Amino acid sequence: MNTSENIESRRSIKHYDPEHVMPEADLQELLRLTKLAPSSFNMQNYRILVVRNPELRQQLREVAWDQAQVTDASVLFILCADLKAHQADPSDYWGHAPQAVQDILGPMIKPFYDGKDQLIRDEAMRSSALAGMTLMLAARDLGYDSCPMVGFDPDAVSKLINLPDGYALSFMLPVGKKAEEAWDRGARLADDKVVSYDRF
Amino acid sequence: MNTSENIESRRSIKHYDPEHVMPEADLQELLRLTKLAPSSFNMQNYRILVVRNPELRQQLREVAWDQAQVTDASVLFILCADLKAHQADPSDYWGHAPQAVQDILGPMIKPFYDGKDQLIRDEAMRSSALAGMTLMLAARDLGYDSCPMVGFDPDAVSKLINLPDGYALSFMLPVGKKAEEAWDRGARLADDKVVSYDRF
Repeated sequence: MNTSENIESRRSIKHYDPEHVMPEADLQELLRLTKLAPSSFNMQNYRILVVRNPELRQQLREVAWDQAQVTDASVLFILCADLKAHQADPSDYWGHAPQAVQDILGPMIKPFYDGKDQLIRDEAMRSSALAGMTLMLAARDLGYDSCPMVGFDPDAVSKLINLPDGYALSFMLPVGKKAEEAWDRGARLADDKVVSYDRF
Repeated sequence: MNTSENIESRRSIKHYDPEHVMPEADLQELLRLTKLAPSSFNMQNYRILVVRNPELRQQLREVAWDQAQVTDASVLFILCADLKAHQADPSDYWGHAPQAVQDILGPMIKPFYDGKDQLIRDEAMRSSALAGMTLMLAARDLGYDSCPMVGFDPDAVSKLINLPDGYALSFMLPVGKKAEEAWDRGARLADDKVVSYDRF
């Protein structure tokens, strides 16, 4: 699907065919494309939880305002973030690069983040959203729809999925086969409320 | 451009044709597509600064590790976030919806965020990144490349662009006509480091 058409026609879909099973090849292709999203210093500080277990999906729905898409979409992705990614060996991220590039970039990562908890958190939320937006558009290219969600109890969800220390929840992203059209699209604010030129 | 091909071939480009001027129609089309990115409760809590003034671009480059793309790309977008979006009149976001939907959703927004500073900030970073990823892929569909950036002095940038109180900087996004290819793509972590199934 053409990218602009994809962006224009993507909608947050709330009702899915609960019988549809996503073929493993589609899931792996979605994961492959999602992982191509950019991240600062190539740290890849997002984490993708793929939830298919029906009992767990039901438990998650109960702490997510009973929203049907949590159980009915083919796959429930939960986008999370690794808040300690900057502490890893930089060659995990730059091992592929020429030594000269590694020598410059590797030593920059830790000092850039160390002790800056808000920056680390901001970065993690950004990375998970860059990956999640890529996943939403990739899903449509493969014939699926999606619904980004923050309407859930984060403590209850963290417990249900055993979220490790040092990780943060970002958002849920059910992906599946649409059973009902979306509501009318939310009106967009006027450009002069969202866009400024040169300076605020 | 096909979406999967777009995602696969998008790279962070650091060198641009400094002579290229983005036609106004392309800029407006990019802004239109970017605004179609989703946001929680349709709050549209991202803000897009479009920087074209050459003197300001030079000043921004000086506080962004002297990176050439800050001055040489056709347009420098700075993605920011409105941390007070949840305090607005909900009809700004839901005025288009049936009254029954407005009656449910409108009163939910303020209590969902009020007093939860970390959630507000997380949401703002997510929204700006969902918009930014949409902008990166839309740009490629229109024949441009981009380079998401956090390598800058945030205090100095905030001062130069007069960032208002209640707003947060998210990231810079130069968009322009590629003059040099990217480095080799950063290696992706193995799936078992990034993807988990059902529970961590």
